[in-house]
Amino acid sequence: MKVAIIFGSKSDTDKMRGAANALKEFGIEYKAYVLSAHRVPEKLREVLKELEADGFECIIAGAGLAAHLPGVIASETVLPVIGVPINGALDGADALYSIVQMPKSIPVATVGIDNSYNAGMLAVEILGVKYPEIREKLLAFRKTMKENFIKENGEGVEL
Amino acid sequence: MKVAIIFGSKSDTDKMRGAANALKEFGIEYKAYVLSAHRVPEKLREVLKELEADGFECIIAGAGLAAHLPGVIASETVLPVIGVPINGALDGADALYSIVQMPKSIPVATVGIDNSYNAGMLAVEILGVKYPEIREKLLAFRKTMKENFIKENGEGVEL
Amino acid sequence: MKVAIIFGSKSDTDKMRGAANALKEFGIEYKAYVLSAHRVPEKLREVLKELEADGFECIIAGAGLAAHLPGVIASETVLPVIGVPINGALDGADALYSIVQMPKSIPVATVGIDNSYNAGMLAVEILGVKYPEIREKLLAFRKTMKENFIKENGEGVEL
Amino acid sequence: MKVAIIFGSKSDTDKMRGAANALKEFGIEYKAYVLSAHRVPEKLREVLKELEADGFECIIAGAGLAAHLPGVIASETVLPVIGVPINGALDGADALYSIVQMPKSIPVATVGIDNSYNAGMLAVEILGVKYPEIREKLLAFRKTMKENFIKENGEGVEL
Amino acid sequence: MKVAIIFGSKSDTDKMRGAANALKEFGIEYKAYVLSAHRVPEKLREVLKELEADGFECIIAGAGLAAHLPGVIASETVLPVIGVPINGALDGADALYSIVQMPKSIPVATVGIDNSYNAGMLAVEILGVKYPEIREKLLAFRKTMKENFIKENGEGVEL
Amino acid sequence: MKVAIIFGSKSDTDKMRGAANALKEFGIEYKAYVLSAHRVPEKLREVLKELEADGFECIIAGAGLAAHLPGVIASETVLPVIGVPINGALDGADALYSIVQMPKSIPVATVGIDNSYNAGMLAVEILGVKYPEIREKLLAFRKTMKENFIKENGEGVEL
Amino acid sequence: MKVAIIFGSKSDTDKMRGAANALKEFGIEYKAYVLSAHRVPEKLREVLKELEADGFECIIAGAGLAAHLPGVIASETVLPVIGVPINGALDGADALYSIVQMPKSIPVATVGIDNSYNAGMLAVEILGVKYPEIREKLLAFRKTMKENFIKENGEGVEL
Amino acid sequence: MKVAIIFGSKSDTDKMRGAANALKEFGIEYKAYVLSAHRVPEKLREVLKELEADGFECIIAGAGLAAHLPGVIASETVLPVIGVPINGALDGADALYSIVQMPKSIPVATVGIDNSYNAGMLAVEILGVKYPEIREKLLAFRKTMKENFIKENGEGVEL
Repeated sequence: MKVAIIFGSKSDTDKMRGAANALKEFGIEYKAYVLSAHRVPEKLREVLKELEADGFECIIAGAGLAAHLPGVIASETVLPVIGVPINGALDGADALYSIVQMPKSIPVATVGIDNSYNAGMLAVEILGVKYPEIREKLLAFRKTMKENFIKENGEGVEL
Repeated sequence: MKVAIIFGSKSDTDKMRGAANALKEFGIEYKAYVLSAHRVPEKLREVLKELEADGFECIIAGAGLAAHLPGVIASETVLPVIGVPINGALDGADALYSIVQMPKSIPVATVGIDNSYNAGMLAVEILGVKYPEIREKLLAFRKTMKENFIKENGEGVEL
Repeated sequence: MKVAIIFGSKSDTDKMRGAANALKEFGIEYKAYVLSAHRVPEKLREVLKELEADGFECIIAGAGLAAHLPGVIASETVLPVIGVPINGALDGADALYSIVQMPKSIPVATVGIDNSYNAGMLAVEILGVKYPEIREKLLAFRKTMKENFIKENGEGVEL
Repeated sequence: MKVAIIFGSKSDTDKMRGAANALKEFGIEYKAYVLSAHRVPEKLREVLKELEADGFECIIAGAGLAAHLPGVIASETVLPVIGVPINGALDGADALYSIVQMPKSIPVATVGIDNSYNAGMLAVEILGVKYPEIREKLLAFRKTMKENFIKENGEGVEL
Repeated sequence: MKVAIIFGSKSDTDKMRGAANALKEFGIEYKAYVLSAHRVPEKLREVLKELEADGFECIIAGAGLAAHLPGVIASETVLPVIGVPINGALDGADALYSIVQMPKSIPVATVGIDNSYNAGMLAVEILGVKYPEIREKLLAFRKTMKENFIKENGEGVEL
Repeated sequence: MKVAIIFGSKSDTDKMRGAANALKEFGIEYKAYVLSAHRVPEKLREVLKELEADGFECIIAGAGLAAHLPGVIASETVLPVIGVPINGALDGADALYSIVQMPKSIPVATVGIDNSYNAGMLAVEILGVKYPEIREKLLAFRKTMKENFIKENGEGVEL
Repeated sequence: MKVAIIFGSKSDTDKMRGAANALKEFGIEYKAYVLSAHRVPEKLREVLKELEADGFECIIAGAGLAAHLPGVIASETVLPVIGVPINGALDGADALYSIVQMPKSIPVATVGIDNSYNAGMLAVEILGVKYPEIREKLLAFRKTMKENFIKENGEGVEL
Repeated sequence: MKVAIIFGSKSDTDKMRGAANALKEFGIEYKAYVLSAHRVPEKLREVLKELEADGFECIIAGAGLAAHLPGVIASETVLPVIGVPINGALDGADALYSIVQMPKSIPVATVGIDNSYNAGMLAVEILGVKYPEIREKLLAFRKTMKENFIKENGEGVEL
């Protein structure tokens, strides 16, 4: 059970860490790459082939600006590709539109701007379809999240 | 192997048919509902419980305007939820933002505005992680898509 | 005469204080909660039931990003719900659209981005319909506001 | 129990009818005016004084483009003012911003673009705070709405 | 030859200083006021009457957010009103739309976001239509501006 | 007393007629030109020189898309230039931004999208600063406008 | 001297014809292809290799929605790539952002939304750098354009 | 082989340096100017004539806000003009629209917001059409870029 995390620029490392954090919480193995759809397209295709051969089951891809990376990955694999729009300009609207507005037949599962943690969570949910133990963990995670939320926020707050 | 398609208003039926069409192409069973997060929240929760009990593995949810439906569904299940923003105003930007900008921990896998076909395709890809026969069909689908595209568009077009 | 203030994340406390301040100026009792429509939906419904039972007459709800909280509350009560879009991304346009574009029959009374003070003022005006003493206070408040504005800004300013 | 509906141009009559329809469903008396904040400001103030003297308890105001009408009305009364942004250009974003972004102390309760029906519903909810019989009708309306929704949309739809 | 500068909030003083600076450069008398269309509408109308009686010939009005001030002034006078959208939220798009999208017959001469200097310049140009000496100064100003620009930027710059 | 109306494309004739209509209502002489800042810049400069020599006192310029025409005219004259953004794409936001966001010292008096009538009215107001008879006509126009508005819209409308 | 025109969907043929028309006016040979970056990436790369081998000197690429095609082409060639954003949703803002916001080192020369004619003209200008006869034709074209514009629009128009 | 870099304000020097850097990497001679389309239009035309006479082959033009500079330059030359939208307000959307949405026949080759480096790269690609040695350098640059990218980002990164 392995997930790949690919993003277009080393400078996005901090923004993509959330994806890794979510996967770690569920004990899911992952591997991260900095790869650019425009600067190293051949290397990207090579890595994607390796990932498929190695049994990776889901790919998280983050990119800013024109943000073609998730869509280009989606065109090279039939694994589910989760796209994270990274805010580099225009409040991230450019990256959001470039990632979500994919043409017919080649979807990218888009999450919120700079919200790589949710990309990780979505990968977990996708694996949860296949692996009952992950689904169990998700149910437990939700339960704990609720309990903690209520514990932390108590019976009303001061304002 | 079953997918649910839920949308908020009967008037969106035509826009959501693409999801069903994609699932049909892969022989995946689906069931469709018109359910509103705001008008019939209890009924929505009831149906979600039934869907989980019946072994549905993925939920596609389409909505326009404030478009809370996909997010509200995601808060009630750990199945992957795929959101389709439907253009009802503001070119669909309202629905897109409402669906994609989910808070930490509760992701919605968002596809393009009015692009329910891609929601269906994404559901197929998610099932393809679990079911090898679906993955095989996806690979065949891509191959046929490419062949047809090239056949149809030949070696250059008149302009 | 009691108003509830609910918001989705502890980190929004400072942005929501304006609502409490407005209510305090009119001596209106309030109770504040951090509750998430997506993370603790059952707790939210439970609190809403309590608030109704306790005679709360208006609910102020603030949220950012997908900002479903005010709409989800509105779907569970027939009390007037006032929504405060909180700027968390996209200059707050995402939260604004998600709150204001509610479907037919389930309105949310939306105020300006990060303008929780006006949410408090609107709650006061709504209570002023019922309680003549509040309406009197509102008229006095407006009168004082005008006098102070004129006193403070005098007969022209230096530029 | 009376509500006023004011809008800036005869050409918006059809778009504002929804407000009247909502009020009619609850048997609430209303009076409608075409009045412009910019073209007949004195007449507007005169009518507002009459409405207050006649015991009107809530004002719905619809406007497009610069859409100052709801805000200008709000500055002349302490009754709750509900604003309806009407799409006349820019998909209605101009009217939405002009209505919702009111300065501190003078709120306008904004509903969705071209959604005058919800303005009517919000007026009903505001009156429901004061009049128990309206609140009862609202609860009944919600119940019927739910029953009809479920009856109409049955146990799933064809797609 | 007198110009009035009116803006809605003391906190905008720095942003409105440019208007005064432009007028000073041309030796044009001005008077500045902080006045709100929503908080002190009666005072605003009173001041406008005085300004007209005192022979003021042009009014510059700056406002942010809903930014009704310039339009409300325009509805009370037939003097040319110049509007300055002030960036308070949404990058100033809200104020820009509210000021520029005025209805038929009541124009506001809108300048760029936070560009009060250009409001001053536009007032000068409007006075230049009437006063030949101002027109001469404008021609001289342009000539000097060009000479200075060229002197300052020389025959190419280092990069 | 003469006003020039210049626009960039014959196809905008209908959208620019409003400017002429406003001027006609006040008996102000005008001359209209189709001239492009990009396609015939020399001709544009030649016409502007002629207009100034002929005593034109104000220039209305309409353009869509990149909409440089009003700004380019403003850089060649110290007469007040009134810009009309014409909706040719992006709901007219492109033209609006291009016209209104002029740099320091070279303002364009911008009116609403496709609102050439207001450009004409603004020209009338500018001339009203100089010509008392125009100012009188403006006051009469406003009076008539108000009377007609009230006559037409009576004491409330059916809804 | 040959230019390639590539676009992502047969349905864009009419919108892309402008590019061919501009090239025809200058007697420049072109070849047009329908090719998708996502659906037939291998075929796209194959065609690009052929185009380079055949001495094509510039590539025009049109696409809508996520519109990755021009950027993906730019990543596979060092020929200048001209991108045409095609309006398929969101007024074409999605395609514009996806095409113009390319990362460092891999530019796409972007023209206006749906303005394929200008893409053709830009290709002509690029060839004009190399081929003096094309540059001569461009100068003649501009001259004729100016003469025709002036002839057609005469010395002022009726309004 | 010479490229001109022109921008509208000394304050944009740092944002435009990227263009010079790209040209330096390829040993291409350039000359930079601060020139404003609105403040010194005659000087701008004079410089453009000199540049053409001196054999400059491509012009890079950067501007913010109304950003007419690139388009005005394009109207005075048939050399390819590359436009750089500079973010001065509205996240740079104003400059982007003003530069890219040029009318029929007068294109500007637009690159990303604040991305002057890509303007330089595009100039290099345009010169590469004419000069085989530049094309060779571009191919080498791409090769090195790929090698460095892969070397730097290795076989996966820590996250």
